[in-house]
Amino acid sequence: MNSYNGWQRKVKEMTLSRIYSEQKRNLKMIEKRLESVLKTSHPILSEASLELLKAGGKRIRPLLTLLCAQYGDPDRREVMDSAVMLELIHMASLVHDDVVDDSELRRGKPTVKAKWDNRVAMFTGDYIFAKAIELISDFKNPEVHLSISKVIRDLSLGEIDQIKELYNWKQNLRVYLRRIKRKTALLMALSCQLGALASGCSSYVAMKLFYFGYYMGMSYQITDDILDFVGTEKQLGKPAGGDLKNGNITLPTFFALNTFGLRESILQVLETDHPDAETWAQVIQSIRDSGAIQASERLSDAYLRKGQEILDRLPQQRVTRSLKEIANYIGTRNY
Amino acid sequence: MNSYNGWQRKVKEMTLSRIYSEQKRNLKMIEKRLESVLKTSHPILSEASLELLKAGGKRIRPLLTLLCAQYGDPDRREVMDSAVMLELIHMASLVHDDVVDDSELRRGKPTVKAKWDNRVAMFTGDYIFAKAIELISDFKNPEVHLSISKVIRDLSLGEIDQIKELYNWKQNLRVYLRRIKRKTALLMALSCQLGALASGCSSYVAMKLFYFGYYMGMSYQITDDILDFVGTEKQLGKPAGGDLKNGNITLPTFFALNTFGLRESILQVLETDHPDAETWAQVIQSIRDSGAIQASERLSDAYLRKGQEILDRLPQQRVTRSLKEIANYIGTRNY
Repeated sequence: MNSYNGWQRKVKEMTLSRIYSEQKRNLKMIEKRLESVLKTSHPILSEASLELLKAGGKRIRPLLTLLCAQYGDPDRREVMDSAVMLELIHMASLVHDDVVDDSELRRGKPTVKAKWDNRVAMFTGDYIFAKAIELISDFKNPEVHLSISKVIRDLSLGEIDQIKELYNWKQNLRVYLRRIKRKTALLMALSCQLGALASGCSSYVAMKLFYFGYYMGMSYQITDDILDFVGTEKQLGKPAGGDLKNGNITLPTFFALNTFGLRESILQVLETDHPDAETWAQVIQSIRDSGAIQASERLSDAYLRKGQEILDRLPQQRVTRSLKEIANYIGTRNY
Repeated sequence: MNSYNGWQRKVKEMTLSRIYSEQKRNLKMIEKRLESVLKTSHPILSEASLELLKAGGKRIRPLLTLLCAQYGDPDRREVMDSAVMLELIHMASLVHDDVVDDSELRRGKPTVKAKWDNRVAMFTGDYIFAKAIELISDFKNPEVHLSISKVIRDLSLGEIDQIKELYNWKQNLRVYLRRIKRKTALLMALSCQLGALASGCSSYVAMKLFYFGYYMGMSYQITDDILDFVGTEKQLGKPAGGDLKNGNITLPTFFALNTFGLRESILQVLETDHPDAETWAQVIQSIRDSGAIQASERLSDAYLRKGQEILDRLPQQRVTRSLKEIANYIGTRNY
């Protein structure tokens, strides 16, 4: 988003599509595995799960796993199992998050809880999650089990943080960062770490890649939170400004409240009963114009740089370049 | 319940309280561990979880683990960890089950979803479950991981079966038995198996105890389903006949429909819009009087006998007698 212009972005998108196309065969296999896992004899469950699958997504977690596995032997069975498992955990957490956030739309489509109800979303998430656990049970390495379960615990804490800190205008930066760490960064960190471990890399390399994934995840989520302010409804698949409207204080709002002098004007709107659309549009525009977006981008960039530094200290293989390109993409994506 | 009379029951309850009092120190420790796991800094989550804890329950799963561990070295750390983990999984599944069943009361108290809402129940269950997963991650034995994750998968399938088969008057016995296996019997089976494995028993003994737990669980759930018809509101902590009213076809209804000629009269009531209390009372009484209860008891007894047979083929230690007494209790419990 920083130093952003159309031409640069185009080049980066081409690079990204090269990475995706190199992994096409593997990603297709993962798609098939996901589909076979999610097909059940229960009609609503099958329909809800397969709809999630069709809704797509960037499969960034499996992609990170596949790439990091190239530091070892990428053909080991555990690599694919990890990639599928990570996407299942991600999908399960999305379904439950939509209940927690009361979200009606995701990627432009009605969420499971909107199309059916909270109950269906609950058991669909439970089922997908249980299938992920089933895959995990085959892993032999105790280090892997320990890492996975810590991340699962933190994901559930993140789900709870999400509610706990709603409408808490006084939360500090640390609380926001912990929340996005739990919600997003740790699962990306795990995706990288498992790619390494499953392909037989040393614990040292796996840990480096864990931190790389962690920094990418932090930047990824900050970018998500920025996009919620600056993206168009078409790009987002839902109206802009949704986080703020739902009482979710993300980084741009945090900076607007605490650094750019908008506390009074924002709180005034938020304390109004059902502000009208125009009032919302104004408050969102004032945050956009305040410098809060640029401040958020700077923090996102700082995480990206930390990730890049880790890559600089890893063996400079072809995959290292791909990971750098992924990091570039994360810093410039607009969808 | 069969050959039931007050005096016999009294004797059995005394035996059971001996077993509980022998395990008092361990059970207290488990209670403390559960409390410390469930205490969080999130107010609603803490309140909901601790209320679940206070609501009690028989802690039958940890008790089975502690007892089965006596075939090996019961002092190993993994024994207590397994017992705590099993109760956590059980608690998490109860909270989510109440959402699926739309239950207002459990053990005479409002359920989490009734006291708060489905959303709170969802994340409370997710959190408790995540804490269970965290405990699991410490286990070294791959056999243990495999068993646990299969049971978790089946629990989630059971949750879904519960909805799928609601109001399905045509379901056969196999479908009912599979549902209670997933819902109840496998977790009891796992409780016994893990007690054995965690205490260092052979896989052979652990597998025998798995089947013992499985048969106990089947009998336990059938008894639960019978009690829902014959218990008093005070014993049940909720009004009798709830399963049928919610469209949940359990064994007594199955027999009444298929063996004791009540199909027409029952379906007539069930197809009425909002039957009144008297009509419900009549249909429940007709099932009680039909012979369906006795037929259900006979099936429960058959499972108990299979469990007893397994115990007969295990080393005849003091704990074998305790397990036999537990089996007797399961066959006669009325709460």
